[in-house]
Amino acid sequence: MASRIRIAIDCMGGDSGLHVTLPAAFRALLAYPDLELFLVGPKSTLESELDANNLYSLSPQTITIVDAPDSVLMSDKPASVLRHKRHSSMYVAVQLLKDKKINAVVSAGNTGALMAVGCYLLGTLTGIDRPAICARIPTHHGNANLLDLGANVNCSAKQLHQFAVMGAALSESVDGVRSPRLALLNIGEEQIKGNEQVKQAARLLGDDSRVNFIGSIEGDKIFSGDADVIVCDGFVGNVALKTSEGTARYISSLIKFEFMNGFLGRLVAFVAKPVLKRVFYKLDPQQYNGASFLGLQGVVVKSHGSSNVDGFLRAISQARSEVKINLPAIIEDHMAS
Amino acid sequence: MASRIRIAIDCMGGDSGLHVTLPAAFRALLAYPDLELFLVGPKSTLESELDANNLYSLSPQTITIVDAPDSVLMSDKPASVLRHKRHSSMYVAVQLLKDKKINAVVSAGNTGALMAVGCYLLGTLTGIDRPAICARIPTHHGNANLLDLGANVNCSAKQLHQFAVMGAALSESVDGVRSPRLALLNIGEEQIKGNEQVKQAARLLGDDSRVNFIGSIEGDKIFSGDADVIVCDGFVGNVALKTSEGTARYISSLIKFEFMNGFLGRLVAFVAKPVLKRVFYKLDPQQYNGASFLGLQGVVVKSHGSSNVDGFLRAISQARSEVKINLPAIIEDHMAS
Repeated sequence: MASRIRIAIDCMGGDSGLHVTLPAAFRALLAYPDLELFLVGPKSTLESELDANNLYSLSPQTITIVDAPDSVLMSDKPASVLRHKRHSSMYVAVQLLKDKKINAVVSAGNTGALMAVGCYLLGTLTGIDRPAICARIPTHHGNANLLDLGANVNCSAKQLHQFAVMGAALSESVDGVRSPRLALLNIGEEQIKGNEQVKQAARLLGDDSRVNFIGSIEGDKIFSGDADVIVCDGFVGNVALKTSEGTARYISSLIKFEFMNGFLGRLVAFVAKPVLKRVFYKLDPQQYNGASFLGLQGVVVKSHGSSNVDGFLRAISQARSEVKINLPAIIEDHMAS
Repeated sequence: MASRIRIAIDCMGGDSGLHVTLPAAFRALLAYPDLELFLVGPKSTLESELDANNLYSLSPQTITIVDAPDSVLMSDKPASVLRHKRHSSMYVAVQLLKDKKINAVVSAGNTGALMAVGCYLLGTLTGIDRPAICARIPTHHGNANLLDLGANVNCSAKQLHQFAVMGAALSESVDGVRSPRLALLNIGEEQIKGNEQVKQAARLLGDDSRVNFIGSIEGDKIFSGDADVIVCDGFVGNVALKTSEGTARYISSLIKFEFMNGFLGRLVAFVAKPVLKRVFYKLDPQQYNGASFLGLQGVVVKSHGSSNVDGFLRAISQARSEVKINLPAIIEDHMAS
C-alpha cells in the first residue's frame, strides 16, 4: 500500500477552534482514505473531546494526537509567537513538518504568525525571496487564483514575478489548467499604467517564456474569467478580496431587504429563495476556503479564521491536493528552469 | 437676481461624446434654473446637433457655445495633451475656468489628461500637494466618499492626510454629514497593520483635531456604512472600486443565469424581476457618477467615460453642488485651520 498523506491539523486555530477543526478532520478521514491526520493541541482537551463524541474509535490507525499545551491568539504578534509560543498548536504543527514527520499543515489561526513560523522553521524555496498567500476565487469561467493576499504589503517587481511563476505552477498542477493565463492586477490595461513595481513586473513577465502572460487587468475583470492567475502585492490583493466579499454581502442584504418589503415582496421571496440560495452558495467564501502559502519548503494551508466545518474540510482537501503533486518541488522546478 | 452657476461641458469627452453630453446638458438646464452652461466643442458640429434636435431655442440665454476644434482621445498621454491639444474641448473648458469665465468643468474624457490639464492650468490649493479623485459610493447607511481613485499611484502619509481632510470637507459641506467618520482603507484594523504610509497616516490623523478619525477599516467594510469618508492611495482605491463593480456584475449575471435555468426559474424570474431591478438600480454606478477632483483651484468633476445621460446629468449636478458651497474655498479653510 502506498504511504498515506500525513497532515497536521492546528486544532486550536480559528474562531471556533476544535469545534470546527475536529469534525472537519473526521469528515476528511471519511472522504479521503489515503489520509492520516496529526491532531495538534492540548492532549487532555483533545482526548476528552474525542471521547465525548466517540470519534477516536472511528479510525484510530489514522489519527495521532500530538500534545501542544499552548495556543496562538489572533492578537499575538508574529515575532512574539516565534519567541514565546513554541509549545502552541500552530508552532508544534509546523515543527512536525520541518521534522518531516508529516507532509502538510492546515491552520485557521493568526495569519501573520503562521507565515512567520512557516518562514522561520521551513524556510523559503530556492529562488523565492518571500512566500505569498494565494486563494482560489470563482469566475465566469472556472476558478482563478489570486495572490498575494497580505503576506507582503510592499512587493518589488522581482517578487511579483516570483508570485506569478508560483501561481501559474499551482494553477497548472493542482487545478489542471493548461498554460494558465497570467495577469497583473493594475489600474489600467495599458503598459504606461500602474506604479513602478507593476510596470517593471510586466516587463519581466513579458520576457519570461515559462509563463503565459496576458498583460494587466483591472479590478472589474477579476471575476470575468479572463485570467487564471492574478498577481498583485499583498495590500492590493487583500483589499480586492475583502472588497468583493463586502460587495457580495451588501448585495445579499439589499436583496433581503427588498424581499421583506411588503406582502408581495415576501411572496416573491418565497419562490425566488432557492434560486438566490444557489447564487450565493456559489459565492460563499467557504467554497473556496484554504489559502496556500506558496514558496515555503512545505505545504502550509491557511483556513479562514471564521471558517465552518465545510470550509475547513475544503482547506484540508487543498493541502492534500498540494501534497499529492508535491507542489513545493514543482515550484522549485519552475523557478530553476 | 443672483448670478447663475456657470458650468462648462466638455461635449466631446466620453465614449458617446455629444450624444450623451448634450441631452444631459439640456436636462440639467430644465432641472436647475440657476444654471448657465458653456458647451465646448467644434462649433459647427455642436450647432448642427443643436439645430437638428431643435434644442438651442429651448433656452438660448443659458447656453453659450465655445469653439474647440480638437478632441482629447482616451489613448492620449497626459503630457502630450498639455503640449499638442490646447484647442481640445477639454483644455478649452478648463481654460475658461482658469480665466474665471465659469465656475466649474464637467468632462467624461481621459482621466489622466483631465487631471494634468487641471493641475497645469488651475494649480492646487494652498496646503495640497496633489489633487485626489473622490467618488460617492452606496452603503448600508447612506453614501460614503472614497478617495483617491487613481490620480496618485503612490502616496505619502502626508498626502493621505490631505486627502482625508478634503474628503471630510466634501462629506460635511456637500453631503451634509455632521462630523463625518473618517477611516483609512487597510488590511487590518490593528495599528500594526498596513504599509508604512498608512501606519504613519493613521498617526497623523489621530493627532488631527479637525477630523473625526475612526481608524482603519478593511475592504469588506467599505459598503457597511461604518465610515463616511474612506481614504487610500489611488492604486488601492481604483482596484477596490472596480473590484466592487466587477463583483456586482458577476452576481447579477449569476442571478440571470439561474433564472434562465428551466421553466420554473423563468417563472420565478418573471415575478422577482422588479424586486431585483430595484436592487441593482441602487448599485448602478450611474447613480453615483461624477467624481470630484479635490484639491484643484476650481471645481472639476469627472464623469465615467461610459456614462449615459442620467449619469452625466448626475455629474453636472455634483459640480453645481460643489460650486454652490464653494468647495475649494472650504477645503482651503480646512487646510489652513
